[in-house]
Amino acid sequence: MRIYDVIKKKRDGFALSKEEIDFFVDGYVKGEIADYQASALCMAIYFKGMNLEETTNLTLAIRNSGEILDFSGVDGIRADKHSTGGVGDKTSLVVAPIVASLGVKVAKMSGRGLGHTGGTVDKLESIPNFNVSLPKAEFIKIVNDIGVCIVGQSADLAPADKKLYALRDVTATVDSMPLIASSIMGKKLAADDDVIVLDVKTGSGSFMKTEEDSVRLAEIMVGIGKNAGKKTVALITDMDIPLGRAIGNALEVKEAIQTLKGQGEEDFKTVCSCLAVEMLYLSGKGDREYCQKLVSDVISSGKALETFKNMIKAQGGDQRVVENPDLLPTAKYTRLVKAKSSGYINKVNTEGYGLSALTLGAGRNKVGDKIDYSAGIILNKKTGDYVEQGDVIATLHANDTSLFEKAEQILLSSTTITEQKPTERKLILARIE
Amino acid sequence: MRIYDVIKKKRDGFALSKEEIDFFVDGYVKGEIADYQASALCMAIYFKGMNLEETTNLTLAIRNSGEILDFSGVDGIRADKHSTGGVGDKTSLVVAPIVASLGVKVAKMSGRGLGHTGGTVDKLESIPNFNVSLPKAEFIKIVNDIGVCIVGQSADLAPADKKLYALRDVTATVDSMPLIASSIMGKKLAADDDVIVLDVKTGSGSFMKTEEDSVRLAEIMVGIGKNAGKKTVALITDMDIPLGRAIGNALEVKEAIQTLKGQGEEDFKTVCSCLAVEMLYLSGKGDREYCQKLVSDVISSGKALETFKNMIKAQGGDQRVVENPDLLPTAKYTRLVKAKSSGYINKVNTEGYGLSALTLGAGRNKVGDKIDYSAGIILNKKTGDYVEQGDVIATLHANDTSLFEKAEQILLSSTTITEQKPTERKLILARIE
Repeated sequence: MRIYDVIKKKRDGFALSKEEIDFFVDGYVKGEIADYQASALCMAIYFKGMNLEETTNLTLAIRNSGEILDFSGVDGIRADKHSTGGVGDKTSLVVAPIVASLGVKVAKMSGRGLGHTGGTVDKLESIPNFNVSLPKAEFIKIVNDIGVCIVGQSADLAPADKKLYALRDVTATVDSMPLIASSIMGKKLAADDDVIVLDVKTGSGSFMKTEEDSVRLAEIMVGIGKNAGKKTVALITDMDIPLGRAIGNALEVKEAIQTLKGQGEEDFKTVCSCLAVEMLYLSGKGDREYCQKLVSDVISSGKALETFKNMIKAQGGDQRVVENPDLLPTAKYTRLVKAKSSGYINKVNTEGYGLSALTLGAGRNKVGDKIDYSAGIILNKKTGDYVEQGDVIATLHANDTSLFEKAEQILLSSTTITEQKPTERKLILARIE
Repeated sequence: MRIYDVIKKKRDGFALSKEEIDFFVDGYVKGEIADYQASALCMAIYFKGMNLEETTNLTLAIRNSGEILDFSGVDGIRADKHSTGGVGDKTSLVVAPIVASLGVKVAKMSGRGLGHTGGTVDKLESIPNFNVSLPKAEFIKIVNDIGVCIVGQSADLAPADKKLYALRDVTATVDSMPLIASSIMGKKLAADDDVIVLDVKTGSGSFMKTEEDSVRLAEIMVGIGKNAGKKTVALITDMDIPLGRAIGNALEVKEAIQTLKGQGEEDFKTVCSCLAVEMLYLSGKGDREYCQKLVSDVISSGKALETFKNMIKAQGGDQRVVENPDLLPTAKYTRLVKAKSSGYINKVNTEGYGLSALTLGAGRNKVGDKIDYSAGIILNKKTGDYVEQGDVIATLHANDTSLFEKAEQILLSSTTITEQKPTERKLILARIE
């Protein structure tokens, strides 16, 4: 087999066989296939696409390029959720303890933030001494004991994806549905869960700007999950406004704790609850209505919060943050951002809000950049709210006052205030199953 | 400027500016742009194409990547011809001396053969001691003295093309009209001639298998030539049958000499004559009818043959081959290939004929392979001829009898004999100007 023929076949619009896809992924990881051939193939895939069978085979080849985790030591059903990334998206911090409190195991590997989006691992690391790099035996022990453990992705996980993504990132071949879907699912399937719930974000703060694209991506990923023998469902959720009120690592942990206490923002609570319900439903806990009741109970009883606290403790973190969130890193300075005119916040560019937080130090421009865990934004007003000129719409948090000006400017230019009240958007736009 | 943005722009179907194209070609030659980015861009160009302005700018950037020859030392108008490559295509050996005999200078740089097609430089090197690597001063002196000199392409000529072509060759991005056209014209324009006549082959022995593609390529190349200020015309000529009767280097030189003596095959004579007429016409020698008369005269007077002889002598070759072609390398063995059935030779796969000659040692599988100058094929019968079963249709020439079987097999499987006489094809299918 020659990679030239594989590139030409895809270029000419034909479906690649499992053998051809394995040959490519395996050869590329081993360095037997050159970067310039891999990038030409990715561009051909960009233009000619891949059917679900090809995409599944690509996903499995990516998964098989590294370690497939053996969770046979974990008792019971294991469920995971995955978000395609957004702004203020701290759902994992809430959903995982809820589900674990109800007897479904969550052995979760999460990523770090990049660009305008945050990452669960960074958020957890804002808790003093929280350890996201655990030996496997300890990881499994915590899952068995507490029901949930969240760690960073191991370096051995899907190396094909790391190498391919780095290449796609510099060759304008990221925006391809089969390549995006196989990248996400290749890593996800390496954890070998029984249940996978996908939170596919849509709107200005997500990678998929249109609902149509989000649905398409969700359909492909659900198809891959099912082809791989997993119970899989996807919710299309709104990312046209940031989720909740907090953007930035420690600020988001605080908001997650509030939410586990039954307080917090309705939009964020709803998304968390819907995701938890899907995980419980697919795990066989009962119909969705019943699962919804279970979720409400486990929050109001404080059991979910207790699970979160136990997880922090088990992972070496300071569990006192649950009672006293001020033990989390706090920025030295804050700045109030005021409305320049009166009217309704008609729409925001959510990506812009993410970039404003990044400017304050809450995110990474490139892999490896340091993060200021205390930095970020609290939204005093959100889309649909009425403001008078001079009202505070957001509070910026940073340890360096020189960062405020640019962050404020980005935030204001990402906020549209009009006389007209915006039509309300649905939070959960679709369920793909 | 970032190459990522250039790739993305082309991927999204936009035309690239001159600055963007220069940035790419310049950066790629300097090694500042990686192979994997260049191959992704080539694949995007494969799918999205380039308009004539972009293609012209790419051509000029390729030309400008290396030495642009200074022919100010040559007196008078300089004309060149270029063939897109075929089987048995020894037209340059005949056309160049004809045109030079009529006062138009031909300072020609030619290529070597690869795959099923031959190269003028290889053919000339089959003449004992013929030198295709001359210092520039000597090259110009010979052009001024004799009117014609044919050398190999200098290593400094269009290095961007060498690097890009090598990349395209392994990434399935060769078959792109703007990339093909800019590759050919980038080298051609480096010679800075006044007149360029393109011989765009069409049919089973050429790179362009359909007349439609050949016309499209010709239109692009003529457009580039004109945009670059050159008088440019293209003839679309038939390569559905080999040109003349000889395939293989020394065998083709013999046929060229016969043709310059006024003998030889009608099809080959016609193509040579038409190309010479175009070169003379664009050089201002008179209308096409008058130029046709000039060509006939210069052959019947023996002046063209004399010019060829003088060129061989000036370039260090044994000019006695003109009177005594047996001084050219001769193969030790011949094998007669006989018709397996009676009927008309209805069609041949000309590429197959080229590959059969390559098998005998007349060509190269890859750059740098050695050539047996004496090896090749003489066609005793051609498309349209009637044969009885057992009639000799071709004579194979080789220095190793073990090569005959495979070569014969390829040749026979490339020949279709039917009861029906084929319809005659036109030799010159179109003129693009």
